[in-house]
Amino acid sequence: MPPSRPAAGTGTATKRWSTALTYIEPNRILVRGYPLDEMMGRLPFGDAVYLLLTGELPTPSIGRLMDAMLVSFIDHGATPPSTMAARNAATTGSSLRGAVAAGVLGFGRYHGGDALACRQLLDEGLAMARTGRSIADTAGLLVQRLVDANEIPPPGFGHRYHTIDPRATRLLQLAHELELDHEHAQLIRAIEQALARHPALKDRPLPINVDGAIAAIAGDIGLPPELADALLIISRVPGLAAHALEEQGREAPMRSIDPTSHSYDGPSERRLPERRK
Amino acid sequence: MPPSRPAAGTGTATKRWSTALTYIEPNRILVRGYPLDEMMGRLPFGDAVYLLLTGELPTPSIGRLMDAMLVSFIDHGATPPSTMAARNAATTGSSLRGAVAAGVLGFGRYHGGDALACRQLLDEGLAMARTGRSIADTAGLLVQRLVDANEIPPPGFGHRYHTIDPRATRLLQLAHELELDHEHAQLIRAIEQALARHPALKDRPLPINVDGAIAAIAGDIGLPPELADALLIISRVPGLAAHALEEQGREAPMRSIDPTSHSYDGPSERRLPERRK
Amino acid sequence: MPPSRPAAGTGTATKRWSTALTYIEPNRILVRGYPLDEMMGRLPFGDAVYLLLTGELPTPSIGRLMDAMLVSFIDHGATPPSTMAARNAATTGSSLRGAVAAGVLGFGRYHGGDALACRQLLDEGLAMARTGRSIADTAGLLVQRLVDANEIPPPGFGHRYHTIDPRATRLLQLAHELELDHEHAQLIRAIEQALARHPALKDRPLPINVDGAIAAIAGDIGLPPELADALLIISRVPGLAAHALEEQGREAPMRSIDPTSHSYDGPSERRLPERRK
Amino acid sequence: MPPSRPAAGTGTATKRWSTALTYIEPNRILVRGYPLDEMMGRLPFGDAVYLLLTGELPTPSIGRLMDAMLVSFIDHGATPPSTMAARNAATTGSSLRGAVAAGVLGFGRYHGGDALACRQLLDEGLAMARTGRSIADTAGLLVQRLVDANEIPPPGFGHRYHTIDPRATRLLQLAHELELDHEHAQLIRAIEQALARHPALKDRPLPINVDGAIAAIAGDIGLPPELADALLIISRVPGLAAHALEEQGREAPMRSIDPTSHSYDGPSERRLPERRK
Repeated sequence: MPPSRPAAGTGTATKRWSTALTYIEPNRILVRGYPLDEMMGRLPFGDAVYLLLTGELPTPSIGRLMDAMLVSFIDHGATPPSTMAARNAATTGSSLRGAVAAGVLGFGRYHGGDALACRQLLDEGLAMARTGRSIADTAGLLVQRLVDANEIPPPGFGHRYHTIDPRATRLLQLAHELELDHEHAQLIRAIEQALARHPALKDRPLPINVDGAIAAIAGDIGLPPELADALLIISRVPGLAAHALEEQGREAPMRSIDPTSHSYDGPSERRLPERRK
Repeated sequence: MPPSRPAAGTGTATKRWSTALTYIEPNRILVRGYPLDEMMGRLPFGDAVYLLLTGELPTPSIGRLMDAMLVSFIDHGATPPSTMAARNAATTGSSLRGAVAAGVLGFGRYHGGDALACRQLLDEGLAMARTGRSIADTAGLLVQRLVDANEIPPPGFGHRYHTIDPRATRLLQLAHELELDHEHAQLIRAIEQALARHPALKDRPLPINVDGAIAAIAGDIGLPPELADALLIISRVPGLAAHALEEQGREAPMRSIDPTSHSYDGPSERRLPERRK
Repeated sequence: MPPSRPAAGTGTATKRWSTALTYIEPNRILVRGYPLDEMMGRLPFGDAVYLLLTGELPTPSIGRLMDAMLVSFIDHGATPPSTMAARNAATTGSSLRGAVAAGVLGFGRYHGGDALACRQLLDEGLAMARTGRSIADTAGLLVQRLVDANEIPPPGFGHRYHTIDPRATRLLQLAHELELDHEHAQLIRAIEQALARHPALKDRPLPINVDGAIAAIAGDIGLPPELADALLIISRVPGLAAHALEEQGREAPMRSIDPTSHSYDGPSERRLPERRK
Repeated sequence: MPPSRPAAGTGTATKRWSTALTYIEPNRILVRGYPLDEMMGRLPFGDAVYLLLTGELPTPSIGRLMDAMLVSFIDHGATPPSTMAARNAATTGSSLRGAVAAGVLGFGRYHGGDALACRQLLDEGLAMARTGRSIADTAGLLVQRLVDANEIPPPGFGHRYHTIDPRATRLLQLAHELELDHEHAQLIRAIEQALARHPALKDRPLPINVDGAIAAIAGDIGLPPELADALLIISRVPGLAAHALEEQGREAPMRSIDPTSHSYDGPSERRLPERRK
């Protein structure tokens, strides 16, 4: 029997392709041209992520903001469905990678997959604003359109628990301190205000959430839109791993995990040591 | 029909359980007791990962080593099977999270899942050494046992491409500079030498690889054994995401991806700017 | 410290919910009301899948068609990206479930996720036809619209290898023999003809593919649209498992898997025994 | 910069490999030599799975048993952690394949991954029996060893809900009716009795569960050991898909899914129609 002969198309043999990410040869690894062993110990992880995803080193300010974005989504307790998916895999004796993968699959349109949609909304608004409208007017128009289309909450706004999302507050504040907040941040703040003032949304808190803050900041530091959801995944993997490890370390296998029946028994609130402030 | 009645066991309703990781209430998030918004911009991502996984802040030196470990495994080009799994998912138009999850599932016993096994080997050797044997003798005994059992390469040693793994070299060097290398590092170096001297392994380079270096360092900074594989996953997720994004950005969908037919077309080798050294 | 108090919403404790799929109590399992042990050995797997997904038993003819649909997509060799994702996970020593999950993630918009989109196209066309147009005219209009929008190939048509997809041919023929082909099958055949006749597509074979055949048949037997992609997944899982097992059984671990460098070394073509015809 | 040059080993270009599963060429698909379109409508899905996994067609009796095994594990309600993982992915708006993959990852050592371990136990016992011991004595010895090693429940025995697993009962009965039960089935029944009689296990029901029944039957029909876990995965994928679809069809997104707070609201118990018995 003759070997499989694919028809023309993707089955063509020896069609060369290229990657611009990482160069490998024996004893040498270059990430976007920089020797990986030179990066280690000198380039913070957030900088390395930026470099890998965009191709260039960030400025120190942008690097600091990258790091803060990666810390911001690192965990959010046991209740997010992604964390529950990871714990449910873990309770069956799954490997750590299986539990983490199950958790990553728990990000969807409504959770951890919102940054891209928010960025698109902001870019749409900024295109409107460039025709001469003020940011405030643009925000009002966007909000009315969202209300009319019943797209409430809009991507990047609202949260199951928080009426003010402390991670979004802190990110936008840090961006401001570092003078990295520009038009995306301006517009997202204006949309937040327009939502708060809209008569149809009076009793419904719709604060900027962390997905929205990351979308806005990523826009203002010039990241391509699809990268923001990557940051959310990278950030949350430690949390998924930590929950899977805690599940396997503390609990009996094969338990029914009720997300509404748990308490926190970790350390009480404490402050970072002085030298870290 | 009556509702489902589970028998005694994991199906029992309202059995309370606890997590010590993260406390959530409206507008307040504490990670191991520290306010997340306070951590953002002040605590590097590597420190935050250490805190989340162990419960306490690292010393600055350990934090620096954490960061270096996380950078060390961030990507290794397109050929690792995990990266190929991610690219194959991506070429079918999968979501980013689907491609990343597929890549995470590509870690297995032989790839990115080796740090735990290496740590167990080292801990076993250190137990032997505590009975009075020298590190060098212990290493020799372990190597002979591995050769007799045909467990070559041992976990933490050898690599498909590198005869000297630059990431392992750099990690152990950095640990030494920070005075954080102790008995695990000592023993892994001794095993490397014993492997190099063993007559049955003359022409077979078996350098310490990055999994082994991370296992040894994690041992010397006191991390529980199962955490090292978590670090490998956390570290590689940016690489999986970057490859998935590059695949979807540069290539036509549904292509046959041949790992042996690609070149690197990214930047030439370049040095980090002075201020980062 | 007080226990986590979720705000109102999905965090509310003890909010009862229901499932209509399977009833479990000690020593008794009912699938849509039928005792599972009564189904075993009496209800073919295809019938059981139909029952589970729709709530009712199929007629014997529909059951036979279900079974044929599940066999149709059972494997397609080593080259599909989903199969390559599974093999890449397998070569790293992953568990079987990890390799299968990686393969399932390799279905995306362009591969194994097309049946829903095709069904939507057909339903749209049938709505047009109900206003009085003939099926042939409707097909012509749809094709022109697809050409104008550059949506070629349309969902359900075309294939990387086949100019006539034998699985689609057989499914539509079997539906016809069982008198289960109705308006969806009629329309998909008409679209295939309109594509073949369109001047802009002269040299481009766009046969009905198996996704399209399944979409049309599922429409004609009254399955809700989103079920067709479920059938594709259920059908392909044996193929993913078989490839993962073959990879781990025949090949060395950690190999670079080149989809364009393989041959077939299984049995030559053979016919089913008489009693199975 | 020169292209990546892998060192010798798995990175070698154009190293041909082979698959014996499925042959593909334009317009022709052969599964283990049989034309796929000939199989469709003539070969039941269970037979096709057996053919794909083993390389040969089953006898009609074995085919019937394959089908029963595939139906046996098709779903088990909402509480299994694998199903909860799938539902948690689904509630975030994940794609169907993402939810199914998350569910597949929810199989682990303690759940749906037990058939291989049970088979190994049975094969070990049968090796002992071949030295002259009776099956009853062998069972007693195995059970004592398991009790001494605190390996209770043994793989293939016990269940969270059932004191008699109706799926195991039916499978072993059907194997007996088809005269396909041999030494593995004999031994597993003997172990069940030895467990029931052991003084240390008096109040602890340890019935043969479905994993064990599948392991025993697979052994007696000559399937390689690692195939049984594949059957469990193939069987359960429809259940995972059905639960994901029900979750997305009935429930609001992003809900906290409490496995202990649900009821069944599907059809009451009903009997299969006469012609299916």
